Amino acid sequence: MRTVAHPEQSHHDRAWEVVRRHLPVTPVVTSPQLGRHVSLKIETFQPTGSFKVRGGLAAVAATRDSTPGREVVAASAGNHGLGLAYAGAALGVKVTVIVPRLASAAKVSALRQFDVRLILHGEGYSEAEAHALELASATGSGFVSPYNDPDVIAGQGTLARELLEQVPSLGTVVVPVGGGGLVAGVALALAGTDVRVIGVESEASPAMSAAVAAGTVVPIAVEPTLADGLAGNLEAGAITVDIARHEKVEILTVSEADIRSTMAYAAHKMGLVLEGAGAVGVAAVRAGLITPDQSGRQTLVLLTGRNVAPALFEEVLHA
Amino acid sequence: MRTVAHPEQSHHDRAWEVVRRHLPVTPVVTSPQLGRHVSLKIETFQPTGSFKVRGGLAAVAATRDSTPGREVVAASAGNHGLGLAYAGAALGVKVTVIVPRLASAAKVSALRQFDVRLILHGEGYSEAEAHALELASATGSGFVSPYNDPDVIAGQGTLARELLEQVPSLGTVVVPVGGGGLVAGVALALAGTDVRVIGVESEASPAMSAAVAAGTVVPIAVEPTLADGLAGNLEAGAITVDIARHEKVEILTVSEADIRSTMAYAAHKMGLVLEGAGAVGVAAVRAGLITPDQSGRQTLVLLTGRNVAPALFEEVLHA
Repeated sequence: MRTVAHPEQSHHDRAWEVVRRHLPVTPVVTSPQLGRHVSLKIETFQPTGSFKVRGGLAAVAATRDSTPGREVVAASAGNHGLGLAYAGAALGVKVTVIVPRLASAAKVSALRQFDVRLILHGEGYSEAEAHALELASATGSGFVSPYNDPDVIAGQGTLARELLEQVPSLGTVVVPVGGGGLVAGVALALAGTDVRVIGVESEASPAMSAAVAAGTVVPIAVEPTLADGLAGNLEAGAITVDIARHEKVEILTVSEADIRSTMAYAAHKMGLVLEGAGAVGVAAVRAGLITPDQSGRQTLVLLTGRNVAPALFEEVLHA
Repeated sequence: MRTVAHPEQSHHDRAWEVVRRHLPVTPVVTSPQLGRHVSLKIETFQPTGSFKVRGGLAAVAATRDSTPGREVVAASAGNHGLGLAYAGAALGVKVTVIVPRLASAAKVSALRQFDVRLILHGEGYSEAEAHALELASATGSGFVSPYNDPDVIAGQGTLARELLEQVPSLGTVVVPVGGGGLVAGVALALAGTDVRVIGVESEASPAMSAAVAAGTVVPIAVEPTLADGLAGNLEAGAITVDIARHEKVEILTVSEADIRSTMAYAAHKMGLVLEGAGAVGVAAVRAGLITPDQSGRQTLVLLTGRNVAPALFEEVLHA
């Protein structure tokens, strides 16, 4: 089991500095069709199409600052890899991404637009991750987990710091949950406020709710899900579990049918392409799982990503 | 030929007041993938999915203020009708929309969500419009043209007034052109600045460029186009032609292939659903028709609407 430090103030400060320098402030829009006090933060406008570039920049900046010249290695078939690739290009740090063979051609081609080293290895994510850890150890590079990393968590948390500036009457934030990097970062950034943090996971992959209930990471069965960006077991000892427990994050789950119908709804009624992982927050609101703030404060739903394979998107629209 | 007054300061003032009270300020985002100094204003986040609700609110507010109790009538198979329906509900004014029989079921069903009187009449827009004019005359209701109306033009112009507040270094605005209500409103709102206004029309329906070249409205052949929201001949004497000429609006045209590929690009690379009419500005940038501002000021492209029939959207994605 890797020992991973919890984020401290210095992590948050560096993350904020690098994110403000390299990323836009993504817009917040009201969404009367979802409810009178519902707003959306549109992370799909990030340059990589997902919020993960926040954590990528924070982690790469940390590597650069602690050990100039050190390279970064990670395993990803999607948004984490894109975020690190973008960050490496922006900060002048060499990045290697281990891509499992089952990664979609669309995602590999999106990665190739950056000056990044790609290695195809293993069938699924866990083999790719094992190889990334070996490679990091063999070469002295810095391994960056997609969620079990204090800089990544601090980077994702910059989203909530933006929210505090953008939404004066913030009451609740609704956050997609997979490994928990985003929900942990958001909860830490909002610690000390009375803003409620609600995590939403796919019922096909309820790793975080199982871990929070058990008090520790427990193995779960992962079923296929449209929210592939949220799917998978958690790393043993993942600090995101401790943070979610300590910050009293509530976790809800949504069904595949909810995710599918929300992706179509987002396209037809909101004009937005959402990947499955990016749609779970809206799915929870549409399913009536989130009761509005009684005081009239805003319920802010994070739309976290838009990177869905074109064929899958068409199939979801057509169903 | 109807005689229509040009917008005066009082039209602009009332339009701004009612738009600020009832509509959100739509976001502006940078778009490095389209060019270093390209930004987008996302009117697809308007409550009706298109900018036309600005003009609808301005026209309904004018009717309410000049003759309390007077009803409003219009012909529309799409965004203009939705804008008026929204405005009627917001301002407590009865609205009747004459819908041509060829209007898509999706658009009629979108209209039905509002408390609006719908009359199906005529095959296409011109028969519906003739009926709307007769009805207005017979009942003493106010007819609201989708573009040849000083309040509608002033309402659409509120978009440019927002831009001046949102984009300090505004150099060029790229505007879809059909009847020219938006481009006329934008050009008037930017008169006295040195911001360049570029209109983009569909080559299948080049009514405005023909009229600007001839100095008066001339009949054109209208071919089928994905930008159905921009298609059709202009009303004789349309004031938008005078305004476009006087304000020296440049008009470009884009092809069906450009519009189609841009709708797919917007979905897959920007995460946005755009109707054909809403995509022509980005299509012009992608086709290399718009040279960047040499001084490094922003080129702002208006994404005007997202209301595309689901089956057509799927077909465009699949092609």
